[in-house]
Amino acid sequence: MSTQRRHDREFVRTFFTTPTAVEGEDDSAKMLRGAVQLRGIEAPDVWVPDNEDATAPSMRDEGAENIIDVISEEGADFPGEIHPRIVWHRDSPETRHQCFKHMLQIADPENGAIEHIDGFVIPEVGDIDDWKKADEFFTIVENEYGLDEGSLAMSVIVESGEAELALGDLRDEMGKPSNNLERLFLLVDGEVDYTKDMRAITPTGGLPPWPELRHNTSRGASANGLIAVDGPYDDIRDVEGYHERMTENQAKGMLGIWSLTPGQVEEANKSPLPPKTGSWLLEVNGRDVELREEDGQYVYDGDGIELEELDDDQYRLTVGGDERELDGDALAEELLDLASYIPSMNDIVDSMEEFEAAKEAGRGAIAMEQSATLLVDDVEVSISNDRMWDEATYQAAQTPITLFQDVYENRPDQHEDLEEMYGEEIVERAMVVG
Amino acid sequence: MSTQRRHDREFVRTFFTTPTAVEGEDDSAKMLRGAVQLRGIEAPDVWVPDNEDATAPSMRDEGAENIIDVISEEGADFPGEIHPRIVWHRDSPETRHQCFKHMLQIADPENGAIEHIDGFVIPEVGDIDDWKKADEFFTIVENEYGLDEGSLAMSVIVESGEAELALGDLRDEMGKPSNNLERLFLLVDGEVDYTKDMRAITPTGGLPPWPELRHNTSRGASANGLIAVDGPYDDIRDVEGYHERMTENQAKGMLGIWSLTPGQVEEANKSPLPPKTGSWLLEVNGRDVELREEDGQYVYDGDGIELEELDDDQYRLTVGGDERELDGDALAEELLDLASYIPSMNDIVDSMEEFEAAKEAGRGAIAMEQSATLLVDDVEVSISNDRMWDEATYQAAQTPITLFQDVYENRPDQHEDLEEMYGEEIVERAMVVG
Amino acid sequence: MSTQRRHDREFVRTFFTTPTAVEGEDDSAKMLRGAVQLRGIEAPDVWVPDNEDATAPSMRDEGAENIIDVISEEGADFPGEIHPRIVWHRDSPETRHQCFKHMLQIADPENGAIEHIDGFVIPEVGDIDDWKKADEFFTIVENEYGLDEGSLAMSVIVESGEAELALGDLRDEMGKPSNNLERLFLLVDGEVDYTKDMRAITPTGGLPPWPELRHNTSRGASANGLIAVDGPYDDIRDVEGYHERMTENQAKGMLGIWSLTPGQVEEANKSPLPPKTGSWLLEVNGRDVELREEDGQYVYDGDGIELEELDDDQYRLTVGGDERELDGDALAEELLDLASYIPSMNDIVDSMEEFEAAKEAGRGAIAMEQSATLLVDDVEVSISNDRMWDEATYQAAQTPITLFQDVYENRPDQHEDLEEMYGEEIVERAMVVG
Repeated sequence: MSTQRRHDREFVRTFFTTPTAVEGEDDSAKMLRGAVQLRGIEAPDVWVPDNEDATAPSMRDEGAENIIDVISEEGADFPGEIHPRIVWHRDSPETRHQCFKHMLQIADPENGAIEHIDGFVIPEVGDIDDWKKADEFFTIVENEYGLDEGSLAMSVIVESGEAELALGDLRDEMGKPSNNLERLFLLVDGEVDYTKDMRAITPTGGLPPWPELRHNTSRGASANGLIAVDGPYDDIRDVEGYHERMTENQAKGMLGIWSLTPGQVEEANKSPLPPKTGSWLLEVNGRDVELREEDGQYVYDGDGIELEELDDDQYRLTVGGDERELDGDALAEELLDLASYIPSMNDIVDSMEEFEAAKEAGRGAIAMEQSATLLVDDVEVSISNDRMWDEATYQAAQTPITLFQDVYENRPDQHEDLEEMYGEEIVERAMVVG
Repeated sequence: MSTQRRHDREFVRTFFTTPTAVEGEDDSAKMLRGAVQLRGIEAPDVWVPDNEDATAPSMRDEGAENIIDVISEEGADFPGEIHPRIVWHRDSPETRHQCFKHMLQIADPENGAIEHIDGFVIPEVGDIDDWKKADEFFTIVENEYGLDEGSLAMSVIVESGEAELALGDLRDEMGKPSNNLERLFLLVDGEVDYTKDMRAITPTGGLPPWPELRHNTSRGASANGLIAVDGPYDDIRDVEGYHERMTENQAKGMLGIWSLTPGQVEEANKSPLPPKTGSWLLEVNGRDVELREEDGQYVYDGDGIELEELDDDQYRLTVGGDERELDGDALAEELLDLASYIPSMNDIVDSMEEFEAAKEAGRGAIAMEQSATLLVDDVEVSISNDRMWDEATYQAAQTPITLFQDVYENRPDQHEDLEEMYGEEIVERAMVVG
Repeated sequence: MSTQRRHDREFVRTFFTTPTAVEGEDDSAKMLRGAVQLRGIEAPDVWVPDNEDATAPSMRDEGAENIIDVISEEGADFPGEIHPRIVWHRDSPETRHQCFKHMLQIADPENGAIEHIDGFVIPEVGDIDDWKKADEFFTIVENEYGLDEGSLAMSVIVESGEAELALGDLRDEMGKPSNNLERLFLLVDGEVDYTKDMRAITPTGGLPPWPELRHNTSRGASANGLIAVDGPYDDIRDVEGYHERMTENQAKGMLGIWSLTPGQVEEANKSPLPPKTGSWLLEVNGRDVELREEDGQYVYDGDGIELEELDDDQYRLTVGGDERELDGDALAEELLDLASYIPSMNDIVDSMEEFEAAKEAGRGAIAMEQSATLLVDDVEVSISNDRMWDEATYQAAQTPITLFQDVYENRPDQHEDLEEMYGEEIVERAMVVG
């Protein structure tokens, strides 16, 4: 038996939290009523009415009511999944009891919300045995209301050393007859509380990067057919930083991220999708600089790399203060080492189609060529690289396409956005490849 | 039941080892006699008379005698805890037997040292079952001498792949009726032997950074209510490098470090404490440069960033060779992205007090403002940033204050140093906040 | 009982794969016939006729025949070990059955190949229970053909999150009476499939660096007496990149790497061996620059560091745009911080001999001096550093020598290459030290 995925979504790009009850407003559910209206690229894959940290403790009973009101009325039309976060704490039986009461209330079919709710998010979990306690409440609630056992998804926030360790136990525990941990859906990192739990200190008070936590969460997701999601990125103003974080996460297999605003949702919904247009990068002093396209050539405008044509196929190349004379071939080789190409959606689909055709024709590996003409200090240099594609390369390259297909199938409200981004023809080809 | 801390100290900044017997001296205990005199900021939180690697094998029986002599005479006045390191090896029953004999000897109440000894440090541990063998010797010794079971703390040196793996088993094993692993206190990395055990090679022969080991040790400490301590920093001359290592460790939740000299003890005792004065940093070509304060402004003196005022609210900003024209708002935004602030002890106490007052008034989150006037190439730019503080931010920010309080309570001999560092008023406020 | 090594080789530098059957050639075994002829520095420590990914699925039955043909004829003279890779998949009973059939066929003594085969490589393993299924086929095959139980080595490709987790279980499972997992030999990372399994995405389609996977593999090897090997480095043209990767791996204790060509084999066979000649590095703007030796002095030719002699023992040093005036001592101190030395084979042997003599004379620790005269902008600066060596330093420094000795003993075909690299005298001294 292989590692199964048991939920509708195989990918989740966005985990958007909304306070459930805000004091001092005419309508304490105002933020929920706003969020439930989101559609298209601003609507998250998973919406999380947040009856835990985003909502003051004194407002959480009212928050549970608001969840019921807003979702029973408008949840049917929400385009993403809905997973309220309710309270829990590995160290507090009182909080766990409150979790159970809120779940019983929100899930009561008479309240009309549960039919639009896909699951609940459980924060502050500890050991795997603590996860089982939460799972047991789901089972009791499902039984109480005649829902199928395991039909309510459970997502957890990994925000303690204990929970990080539990990620390694999951595969031994899921499938045991005495639990329903197969209901697990998202593994979400919570770096603020994790930082507190680990007692970490940084000079500026900023969050540590915690690369190992993110690796372990992503690995736990991979080994158990779940989905890994990174925690909130506080500095909402800093769009570039948010993108850098997502690029880092994606290289770890963590394709989803928390979003705090519809603006962040839009950025995060787009981030793991391949770009419309390919681009060439040049590594200059350890940083990748995007080259400007002009008339089919790729122009480097900076002064970190200097190039001068001497005569007789001789060139002087200066990189980071290091000056060398090279002939044309050596120059092209040198620039090829510094250059890299970010393929477009179109490029990826092309390559996959090409490999599929080759495979059909009985060939197991083919060379994919990438070439370009670079322009550095007005000197033209043509570079070209072959990369071997075999079955494994093909499958690894497929991830963004599979993600795209999952989005397209599950989010009809985003069809227009996607067609606007890529054009109809590419969207159609991307839906049939693979 | 939550993760408990079972020892007097919740934080240990410094783990200072001293050879127990040095050949060729008139008095082989000379170094012990020097170290036991340390007081104040030069005295470690944990002093480790080292009867293992720091002492030649042939001198270790004499070393055990010296430990008894020096601690029975002068241990009562030592301001930190005392945890001798004795021999142990996961692969050598002979060494383990020697461990038992030395422990029996040093712990014998008739020898007068044990009443001043807080525990023992066990090096070269392997699997968790190997840790239990050491724990069992502690139990037998405690029973033999009428000490309470578990009253002697056990700290281990993690210096093998096996021991690193055992960090993940600890939480399943502590609390079982057949062991007393609750006696565990410090988890100390030993990178030299770990490097040997992992068979790692670096070109210069320097130690690899082992970030994953340090993460796993810190996580093991967090999940079990223990304290993580990094291994020795060999290059005693290199104070800056020692500080960089500690800053890295602190971002991993590893707040303690080995010290080889009283000078290193002093640096390491101060390192996790917030600075007396806040400072602004500017990120220039990937490195953080501290700005010079002058008349309340923060001046950048380097030439990695250039700024020129054109006219009509237009500026030319050059960062790393990349030149742009911006209006005043965009300029401030740009510099804000590059700037960061290291808060002082005073700033942290202020923010915590402010948040506590807001919480009392029923607000769950407040914005904390940081602002400054920067001076770059004689152009003034005012920047300002809001950071949202909620309960989780508050608690994560609290770690250095909790550490400070732990130090103040347990180290009366450092009161004078702390008051000199911060002034009496800040010390008093820091002791009541949180 | 300590962690044992149970195989002839304690170190494996190179893992060289060859397709077993290529369609469209006169002789589909042509590549095997070429590879089996390799000798000396171009011949790998472990040769892997690859009947999995490198060979088209439709050609694998023919590949199994080719393995038998080529190895039965020419395997006796191959200087390295031979470990064919056969198919396996944790999620496919059909593939596992095919594994068993191919193993039965290749191992049949009547076919004459098995006497030259040291073991098999099993790809795509999952949980530890999946490893046991493969191990069981080895046991049945051994029994069927009257081979000693455990005599066929098993190496695995770690290319899934499950397999990475299994690395942590290994030590609990090896040695149980119901398996023969002691046959395990190499733990090889397979980053392409791992990337697919983790669903990671990078902008360029390049492989993520996966530092945690490599750490966990190396630690799993260390804790179980096995050998860690990194996966293939695709960009065959990029020799410098291959070396950087190996240097990174070596700092993790992963001393072996996959090779795709005899050229890569040669680079990888040499990489973990100490250099013939020592060299000084200077850290300039965060990068280590090798200094040019000239008349016993070490010259810095770049312009990242500038040095000017003023008068009266005063110097102006400019590092990364930061200008300071220093006296001679402070200058030497400053340059010492930036400099580092890569010792030669000769240096390492010298240091070890010196420490061994000191130990014999009853000293536990000695200072090793490194000194040099640097020439920066025509100003001479003499620097000197002492490093303390104790038993642990000695043992950690010993790894490259132990590796060298393992190579020398097991690879007589490389004696000539090694003597050419180092000279006979150094080779002889390196063989007796330690």
